[in-house]
Amino acid sequence: MKKAVILFSGGLDSTTCLALAKHEGFECHALSFNYGQKHSTELHAAKKIATKFNANHTIINMPIWQLCESALTNANISIPDYDNKNEIPITYVPARNTIFLSLALSLAESIKSDDIFIGVSAVDYSGYPDCRPEYINAFQKLANLATKIGTEENNIKIHAPLINLSKAETIQLGLKLGVNYADTVSCYRANTKGYACGKCDSCILRKKGFNEAKVMDNTFYY
Amino acid sequence: MKKAVILFSGGLDSTTCLALAKHEGFECHALSFNYGQKHSTELHAAKKIATKFNANHTIINMPIWQLCESALTNANISIPDYDNKNEIPITYVPARNTIFLSLALSLAESIKSDDIFIGVSAVDYSGYPDCRPEYINAFQKLANLATKIGTEENNIKIHAPLINLSKAETIQLGLKLGVNYADTVSCYRANTKGYACGKCDSCILRKKGFNEAKVMDNTFYY
Repeated sequence: MKKAVILFSGGLDSTTCLALAKHEGFECHALSFNYGQKHSTELHAAKKIATKFNANHTIINMPIWQLCESALTNANISIPDYDNKNEIPITYVPARNTIFLSLALSLAESIKSDDIFIGVSAVDYSGYPDCRPEYINAFQKLANLATKIGTEENNIKIHAPLINLSKAETIQLGLKLGVNYADTVSCYRANTKGYACGKCDSCILRKKGFNEAKVMDNTFYY
Repeated sequence: MKKAVILFSGGLDSTTCLALAKHEGFECHALSFNYGQKHSTELHAAKKIATKFNANHTIINMPIWQLCESALTNANISIPDYDNKNEIPITYVPARNTIFLSLALSLAESIKSDDIFIGVSAVDYSGYPDCRPEYINAFQKLANLATKIGTEENNIKIHAPLINLSKAETIQLGLKLGVNYADTVSCYRANTKGYACGKCDSCILRKKGFNEAKVMDNTFYY
């Protein structure tokens, strides 16, 4: 059985990725990070979902907050409500996906896996630069140069199956694969129970997805 | 004053890099990692050297050992003496430089620095894939796609000034720049005082360097 590493926050997108990797027959190794995010309650959701999908699950403590300023990790910067500006928002965590993919690559090489899944989308997204197809392609190229396994076989593949999907399409895919989105936590201001604010970037994109997919939004809001 | 982030283990190569970045007029931000390495005594050396060079210094706890198997981090795998085999040795830590560069990139973007220094060499080295020029070039390309600052200005530069230098040439460069190599720790089996074994890959390459540079080796050996 082929192994895959899945970057897994416990949110809507990465849960859909996990379900897809499972559906494609991979033995799934889900990887989550406690990086000082205010919504660390997502890690409880991640644990619960990984168990449901019978995936291996590792949570790594990663003090990214020591290195960088972001509304997601810094108590002195408030997480804003959604606005429609066409610029990178203050919830951006510098180099976050690069850090996460690097650690996934380390795990992948260790367990002899060629396949890494990441749930980025360049359609309904917050405008972060490290969610774009050209970024994912560059990381795949790097991964094959960076590692023993990549250098020998050039086989490492970064799967970003949601990259061209709208949030609605992702939801429709996940529902077919048996995801219960009530289990997932996307909100940047989720409370300790995992209930969502309904107003941040992440909540608004998620709501729009359920709306466009014409599916009941069973998210818990506070 | 332009800022630079220097990946800084406290060893011979990264100390030379720090001295060079200082010499080139950068405000230096040295970044070290406690990643479960057996020779974590190198971090004491790093602290001492950073102070001497009047550099900012951050040590980040990074539990890479939870993800991967390596003789450098796993108590059940012994660090071997040097052998002359032409293959990647068991001291290889999967994706280590990618993880370290990613974190350096996060810090660089946060402090508005375009310049990251890494002390890799593809001449006298252990054969790790993530020390080669093509790897460094691929990371630089990635860095400019991954970040807000890179996407806007495409200015991020990964400096690997030692990449084409032999260990002897690195030593000669460092001595000109005022490095005292007795302060540095390279040994994979360094004891708590920072004294070196003289027999591992890292020690043998270092000894060869002093020998070829025709310079007294003032390393402390146990």
